[in-house]
Amino acid sequence: MTKEDLLQTHERIKPYIHNTPVLTSRFLNEQANATIYFKCENFQRMGAFKMRGAANAVLNLTAEQKSKGVVTHSSGNFAQAVALSAKTLGVKAYIVMPENAPTVKKEAVKGYGGEVIICPSTIEARETAAKKIQDEKGATFLHPSNDVDVILGQGTAAMELLDDQPNLDFIFTPVGGGGLIAGTALAAHYLGNNCQAIAGEPMEADDAWRSLRSGKIEKNQTSNTVADGLRTHLGNHNFPIIQKYVKEIIRVEESEIIAAMRLIWERMKIIIEPSCAVPLAALLKEKNRFEKKKIGIILSGGNVDLSNLPF
Amino acid sequence: MTKEDLLQTHERIKPYIHNTPVLTSRFLNEQANATIYFKCENFQRMGAFKMRGAANAVLNLTAEQKSKGVVTHSSGNFAQAVALSAKTLGVKAYIVMPENAPTVKKEAVKGYGGEVIICPSTIEARETAAKKIQDEKGATFLHPSNDVDVILGQGTAAMELLDDQPNLDFIFTPVGGGGLIAGTALAAHYLGNNCQAIAGEPMEADDAWRSLRSGKIEKNQTSNTVADGLRTHLGNHNFPIIQKYVKEIIRVEESEIIAAMRLIWERMKIIIEPSCAVPLAALLKEKNRFEKKKIGIILSGGNVDLSNLPF
Repeated sequence: MTKEDLLQTHERIKPYIHNTPVLTSRFLNEQANATIYFKCENFQRMGAFKMRGAANAVLNLTAEQKSKGVVTHSSGNFAQAVALSAKTLGVKAYIVMPENAPTVKKEAVKGYGGEVIICPSTIEARETAAKKIQDEKGATFLHPSNDVDVILGQGTAAMELLDDQPNLDFIFTPVGGGGLIAGTALAAHYLGNNCQAIAGEPMEADDAWRSLRSGKIEKNQTSNTVADGLRTHLGNHNFPIIQKYVKEIIRVEESEIIAAMRLIWERMKIIIEPSCAVPLAALLKEKNRFEKKKIGIILSGGNVDLSNLPF
Repeated sequence: MTKEDLLQTHERIKPYIHNTPVLTSRFLNEQANATIYFKCENFQRMGAFKMRGAANAVLNLTAEQKSKGVVTHSSGNFAQAVALSAKTLGVKAYIVMPENAPTVKKEAVKGYGGEVIICPSTIEARETAAKKIQDEKGATFLHPSNDVDVILGQGTAAMELLDDQPNLDFIFTPVGGGGLIAGTALAAHYLGNNCQAIAGEPMEADDAWRSLRSGKIEKNQTSNTVADGLRTHLGNHNFPIIQKYVKEIIRVEESEIIAAMRLIWERMKIIIEPSCAVPLAALLKEKNRFEKKKIGIILSGGNVDLSNLPF
């Protein structure tokens, strides 16, 4: 994946995404003793950065692939992103969702025109159901994070942030499946001015941190974290990029995630998901090492269940 | 109060306030079948439009008045606005707060450098405590809504909105004490292009609606509304302006306020106070009358107690 790939990706998806605003907070700058630029992907279409990767993946299909549709399995933001991207481009979307997925999420996918297929809530059942649709309909499977087109798409958030603030020293993102941090690390490498990518990860789901140490993709035995978008593990496409270009992964406790989430809600008056708060929690935890630096933070999404808040 | 007064007010306070962003939502436009421009005063300094009026009032003090400080009684946003405005301009601020005011609000005022004076939680006790400080310290009393400088200051939010969108047909605000709607109505009259001001008011505290009907300032016997910023009544300075320039007051039920608040949180991903949701609730309630119109809504503030949400 080259600089040219990133630039072409951004040109390709630009008509289908928002160039989201970059916000600052005097109070949070004082707290961190640094200058922080928040890239607000919570204001992205369908409410998360996932729209970028999904749009790129659908746009890169051949005409024949487009005619047969796309399929994914997800209970989260990628489901909505695929449904909306596909709808926008006149492509059929099959979304496999576990039976215990919240009704509001199923309705959101349907609202974006996706066909929801319900399956038992195990990873095996989800994969089987998706495979069946690939076989029967000829639909193309889209992976939420371990896909070259998706990784490049996710990298465009950092590209826009660097366009706005070319001299960032660091860009922080969360790490879950690895698509966002891999794309961000590529953007920082190719388009930054000596800018380095850092990921925040919940201590309760620290598979990526362990993977960097062991040199192979580790999994979580449990993932008891409020950051529900970060419970997945890395994949063979994004792991080598993370190994090569990500400077560091900083782990944070649940209480630190919730405190950072609350700070952003109360001080910035914007709604972010718990997963979103992880990079700020990581920065505040290690703030002595980032004093006086210019730091970008990608606020990854804002789709939160208001009836089930951690405070 | 003239057009020139408004223009001079904006010039005066500009260095001390944010020109807050104007946001739109495709979804909410579809819901209302209109084009809505949200002026986001929840992103204002200290989190509410009250900063505008307070800054103007403090800036208009004489040098002697400034040397003796200002005093107000408030448990809400005006307390913080006066404290921050005074601090910014090197003026002492005495803030009388009822003993049952939330600790977080007292701390916020102290954080902005205000001196908090605790009193019993009756309006009489508050007025007595404020009067005592006026007498003893020579401090100037600032009223949160019934003050010419405050009204002019509050009008600058609509001025900025009209600068961004000159052809608005209507501007909606909430009405509580009446400062915001009075200032907005003046701005719409002098600077709009046939633009009319409309207020939303909780049915449970509909004193302003009744005042327009009876021709005198009515009060609330009870004010059992989630919109805690709108429980107060009009004053002799703002009522004549409201009588002359406000086209209509639309009353809404509690459930409509909460539903509108939730829509803004979920769809726009921004945090607003319950009081803020009242104008959108009013628009949605009467949407048949506003089809295809260009409508400004002033989102008045974002200081909300996250531990005590109505959903």
